[in-house]
Amino acid sequence: MTAYGKLEEKFATLMALHEAEGFLHWDAATMMPPGSHGPRSEQVAALKAVCHAMITDPETADLLDRAADQTDLDPWAAANLSGMRRMWVHATALDADLVQALSKASMGCETVWRKARPEGDFKLVLPHLTEVVNLTKQAAQAKAEKFDCDPYDALMDQFTPGLRRCHIDPVFQKLEGLLPSLLERILDRQAENPPPIMPDGPFPIDQQRALGVAFMEILGFDFDHGRLDISLHPFSGGTPDDLRITTRYDEDDFTTALMGILHETGHALYEKGLPKAWRLQPVGGARGMDIHESQSLLIEMQVCRSREFLQFAAPYIQKAFAQTGPAWSPENLYRIYTRVDRGLIRVDADEVTYPLHIILRYNLETALLSGDLAVQDLPAAWNDAMDRLLGIRPDNDGDGCMQDIHWFDGAIGYFPSYTLGALTAAQFFAAAKRDDDKILAAIAAGDFKPLYAWLGKNIHGLGSLYETPELIRKATGEALNPDIFVRHLQDRYLA
Amino acid sequence: MTAYGKLEEKFATLMALHEAEGFLHWDAATMMPPGSHGPRSEQVAALKAVCHAMITDPETADLLDRAADQTDLDPWAAANLSGMRRMWVHATALDADLVQALSKASMGCETVWRKARPEGDFKLVLPHLTEVVNLTKQAAQAKAEKFDCDPYDALMDQFTPGLRRCHIDPVFQKLEGLLPSLLERILDRQAENPPPIMPDGPFPIDQQRALGVAFMEILGFDFDHGRLDISLHPFSGGTPDDLRITTRYDEDDFTTALMGILHETGHALYEKGLPKAWRLQPVGGARGMDIHESQSLLIEMQVCRSREFLQFAAPYIQKAFAQTGPAWSPENLYRIYTRVDRGLIRVDADEVTYPLHIILRYNLETALLSGDLAVQDLPAAWNDAMDRLLGIRPDNDGDGCMQDIHWFDGAIGYFPSYTLGALTAAQFFAAAKRDDDKILAAIAAGDFKPLYAWLGKNIHGLGSLYETPELIRKATGEALNPDIFVRHLQDRYLA
Repeated sequence: MTAYGKLEEKFATLMALHEAEGFLHWDAATMMPPGSHGPRSEQVAALKAVCHAMITDPETADLLDRAADQTDLDPWAAANLSGMRRMWVHATALDADLVQALSKASMGCETVWRKARPEGDFKLVLPHLTEVVNLTKQAAQAKAEKFDCDPYDALMDQFTPGLRRCHIDPVFQKLEGLLPSLLERILDRQAENPPPIMPDGPFPIDQQRALGVAFMEILGFDFDHGRLDISLHPFSGGTPDDLRITTRYDEDDFTTALMGILHETGHALYEKGLPKAWRLQPVGGARGMDIHESQSLLIEMQVCRSREFLQFAAPYIQKAFAQTGPAWSPENLYRIYTRVDRGLIRVDADEVTYPLHIILRYNLETALLSGDLAVQDLPAAWNDAMDRLLGIRPDNDGDGCMQDIHWFDGAIGYFPSYTLGALTAAQFFAAAKRDDDKILAAIAAGDFKPLYAWLGKNIHGLGSLYETPELIRKATGEALNPDIFVRHLQDRYLA
Repeated sequence: MTAYGKLEEKFATLMALHEAEGFLHWDAATMMPPGSHGPRSEQVAALKAVCHAMITDPETADLLDRAADQTDLDPWAAANLSGMRRMWVHATALDADLVQALSKASMGCETVWRKARPEGDFKLVLPHLTEVVNLTKQAAQAKAEKFDCDPYDALMDQFTPGLRRCHIDPVFQKLEGLLPSLLERILDRQAENPPPIMPDGPFPIDQQRALGVAFMEILGFDFDHGRLDISLHPFSGGTPDDLRITTRYDEDDFTTALMGILHETGHALYEKGLPKAWRLQPVGGARGMDIHESQSLLIEMQVCRSREFLQFAAPYIQKAFAQTGPAWSPENLYRIYTRVDRGLIRVDADEVTYPLHIILRYNLETALLSGDLAVQDLPAAWNDAMDRLLGIRPDNDGDGCMQDIHWFDGAIGYFPSYTLGALTAAQFFAAAKRDDDKILAAIAAGDFKPLYAWLGKNIHGLGSLYETPELIRKATGEALNPDIFVRHLQDRYLA
């Protein structure tokens, strides 16, 4: 067996162990009784430890070096080998002491954050966050040397391989310039009409669930290979053959859970369409968190919040709750689902303001990492930026810089993927409609096959064959272009 | 760190990985969508492979040898080391080719068995079972050499460490001599009265579940650290801090699911009571399948099928289904729960006939292993033994030698633990009542604390500190004594 062949065997075991770990997380979020977090963290730690040992084993380095000399690798195998090496670099770049210190600091900080957030008590969490940031700086520096990139780039690479600041900065700068005034115009236009009518509840959970399941099936989710459950924080997990998505229901408002289900279904459809021939290999996996988010947002924002889809969906929604009337018209549902607001909270934000929330975080976390911003100055910097970008100020840090878990559990470098996903979703959907002009009419008739044919060929079926910039260029004919997203907003909100 | 200390670290990881595997099995039985068995088996195989690699690593052998020279080990640590060595022998006794061949043959045989059983088509499964038996013989022989015991003993040791034929043969021979005539007398006595009145259904599943949950809580099951779910084959899984039991419901008959829940609760209470100081160490785990079964049967057969418990339980049962009348009286419920029948199917058997089902299987599987019985002669031998022991003959092999999965998935040597569990349950309960004469009265009042105090001190809290024969002797003052079980049957069914 060649060195590359041995690596394929090794990584198949490693990826299967990652899948096992994924199911433990799914279980912890959906099924696990409340008192069982202690032992669960031991099981997860044991899995992480054996995975780390497998990948940092000197044999892996040796096989990677020998496989690099193989000239018989086709493009898929070569991309697979490159994915393996990237995982190996991430696993070996940090010495064990730093990994342990970072893990301990993150867990401790997250615990304190959970206590401090309700009171917005930043002082309580400050020493813990300071330690997380300091250790993250060390980790970023160590990885940057291995990848020969900027320290922040090395952090992003953990979530969106190959993504660099040089891809983001011009895009985010452009949006930062355009969006505040665009938001102003959209809100003005929106104010010309009365607000949409919110349907009156209560909406029993079993009816909401049945409606969600009906749309999941219409969208192609296969319940022979997946489930829908409830969790506090909705997510998409599982494997391509066993997709586990979650939501949470509000009996007073069905609209949020329903759109949440469609969002997670977008994630699941991507996983489902990954290349089966490369299952359990790095190249067979999803291409980073930005492309993953592009697939959920393509389904949610581009498809399911469109007039075409809501026209198709309205009768199902009416029937699910046995209701009719103005609140249930396609046009009113469309207005509910395209409502724009200046809000303090990212996870509640609409697609117009969301990028501003992300750009704020991107600017602050890059400044934290470079040392241009001291951790203690974070609340003031947050509030000023919020004011400048969105025109509102939080009156406590719980609704400000403490609202998200990401920094407090050590995930610096993750935020950009949300907005890159939104931009890429717009760009993919525009390209799909350009390449096949039947896509939109089919969606209006509840037929997603033309769209999925395009996504399968250009995104899903390619797994991690190309790095993100190349994937975007091949699928759409150009590099990431924020103008397409801006045009989408103008078309939807100002036309 | 000492060699023993290093082993503790290593086995903590290993046991946590076993726990992770356990949750994957729980998920597969309760939650997994029907089409996802393929990838799940890959995740389980990967976990098994890394566990096998960890334990067969030459470092483990070296540490075991060095730890054996340590004189500073207290009895718990010494028993822990002995448990580690036993796991190591089981893991290293077979060469990799045999392990793989056995695993492949078992999986193939089980698959064919699932198809062949509904038709009772033994010929279809015969070549597969022959291969499983032949490979199991080789495995038994290899392990017997390492343990210096009989090949069948080596198989039993996988499930009930330390259990040997010399412990079983005299006990089973005695029961084989006594039980058929005792059964005759019990059935005669039973025939003196009309059969019990079966309550009329349907019994909605949510009402059955609520009743089961109520009794679980009364018995001390803590839903902050456990769950009750549905599976095709009820089982008890999870960990001491996260107990997962399952049942299945029949809308026409609530009595079976209810008693099944109480049985699995017995398993769960044992796990819950294991010594916390030795969590994730071999000595902190349950003492084999026989003692595990003794704890479920103590709760089910000794406690919950008693007049005392059913007197206490009847009002709850009546209230759960909002029913009263003769069918719901404590005495009628007691007669339902102590009904004895000659039946063909082990899993439906009562406590009087169950040992005969097991003795039949024990006689046949020991004969298969020694070569005294050819696999092709199994159906005839089964039917003759059934006739001799229970006085009935199956008219097809699906209700005969093909009814249980055990042989067909390679688990030869498992069956004795069911009856050893029943005998031990009777012996433990008799000793507990003798040691604390308030136990029975407390149970009649729904108070299990006195019983649990005894079980905690004598069984649960001891984990795997003692081998089974020593555990029984210390708890009850004598070796396993089948007369106590026979006396229990006489008291309950002939008094």
